[in-house]
Amino acid sequence: MWHLYQFPLCPFSRKVRLALGEKGVSFEMLREHPWEARDEFFAFNPAGRTPVLHHGPKGITLIDSQAICEYFEETVDKSPLILGTAANRAEIRRLVALFDENFFADVTLPLLHERMKKRLVLRAPPDSKLLRQAMRLAHEHLDYIDWLVDNRRWLAGAQLSLADLTAAAQISVVDYLGGVDWSGHEGSHGWYRVIKSRPSFRPLLSEKMEGIAPPSQYADVNA
Amino acid sequence: MWHLYQFPLCPFSRKVRLALGEKGVSFEMLREHPWEARDEFFAFNPAGRTPVLHHGPKGITLIDSQAICEYFEETVDKSPLILGTAANRAEIRRLVALFDENFFADVTLPLLHERMKKRLVLRAPPDSKLLRQAMRLAHEHLDYIDWLVDNRRWLAGAQLSLADLTAAAQISVVDYLGGVDWSGHEGSHGWYRVIKSRPSFRPLLSEKMEGIAPPSQYADVNA
Ligand SMILES: N[C@@H](CCC(=O)N[C@@H](CS)C(=O)NCC(=O)O)C(=O)O
Ligand SMILES: N[C@@H](CCC(=O)N[C@@H](CS)C(=O)NCC(=O)O)C(=O)O
Repeated sequence: MWHLYQFPLCPFSRKVRLALGEKGVSFEMLREHPWEARDEFFAFNPAGRTPVLHHGPKGITLIDSQAICEYFEETVDKSPLILGTAANRAEIRRLVALFDENFFADVTLPLLHERMKKRLVLRAPPDSKLLRQAMRLAHEHLDYIDWLVDNRRWLAGAQLSLADLTAAAQISVVDYLGGVDWSGHEGSHGWYRVIKSRPSFRPLLSEKMEGIAPPSQYADVNA
Repeated sequence: MWHLYQFPLCPFSRKVRLALGEKGVSFEMLREHPWEARDEFFAFNPAGRTPVLHHGPKGITLIDSQAICEYFEETVDKSPLILGTAANRAEIRRLVALFDENFFADVTLPLLHERMKKRLVLRAPPDSKLLRQAMRLAHEHLDYIDWLVDNRRWLAGAQLSLADLTAAAQISVVDYLGGVDWSGHEGSHGWYRVIKSRPSFRPLLSEKMEGIAPPSQYADVNA
């Protein structure tokens, strides 16, 4: 059995959970808060980051959400998520990096810091200037998603791919932490509603991070 | 012909150059400074980042160093760099992420900011406190490389892989911008000397970023 070290609002763990869900790989979850910097966790992962996926009997420890997704892409045939020609696959990986790096740095990370870490760890009020800037950058990213879904069936092309799961994982954390403002983003909103109603998404939506309540539309697959 | 948009001190462009060098893929270089935020460059890459690899006749634009390296891993058989079993490949990708993300954020990025951007763009003196902190973190990363090469022939296992090229690309930028302090890191130093003397490394060592001179040992393959 695979064991996933994660916490509910880690977007990279969400990406892995969605990919494993689509591929039908079962796993158990263990709670890990990287900010607690447990020695045992650093012994596992010198980078001290979630997600980590561990298989005791096989003696395998997988670290980094993209390394994990590539591993299951190579070992599980069901539901290819990095698919098509080499150029298509490069386009999927470009978008994965765009969301995991740029969207994360611009939007998800400031929200996690202001609305999760400050509440649970630092016991300080959020900085509304930083929140406003993150929301402004969120609109720019949603503009880009609008453009993609205007030109393609899914973000990277004709089929659902890891690009969609990665973007949705990041967006879902933002949505939990304050709600995404979809005004002016009909295209993105329609795409997100479709992703959100997939069975792989269900377990994420019902789960809570203690001490932080999501807005009411968060788990509503029609909202 | 492939065209690589890059600047000499971009560690991700260096990683791509090393990988293409090992694989024997030829390319021409075009200079791109992401901080100038040229409209034409953003039209190419909405993330506005180097490296970008473009092939006009084929109509292919590859973005993100890892997406680029995976593309050539899939399309060029020579010198596999993400090699072995699925678990070995996951270990290579874990280390690539460790150097491209953690080492970059801890060491390369502060050095690029303090010693390149402040000199060339902001015209401000470097912050010696930030430089000291980056050097302290560099020692921690070198400790980890010492441990790896104590236990393995190359960073990710028995063979040269993209993990070695990625780590060397980051380290070479740090070395250019002030010199790596190898004291207490015999293992890492020996490993870096070997990488530095490979033919794929030669073009990097002879190239200069205008306005910034590297220390004398930078291009010396015996130093
Ligand atoms: N590229 C990594 C990023 C992982 C990451 O940044 N995880 C965050 C939690 S959402 C973390 O553990 N941060 C703690 C730290 O960076 O020290 C991945 O895709 O797995
Ligand atoms: N994950 C990307 C990172 C690329 C990156 O951060 N490039 C830097 C130059 S070294 C850049 O263009 N930065 C400008 C910016 O982030 O706006 C890759 O591997 O290609």
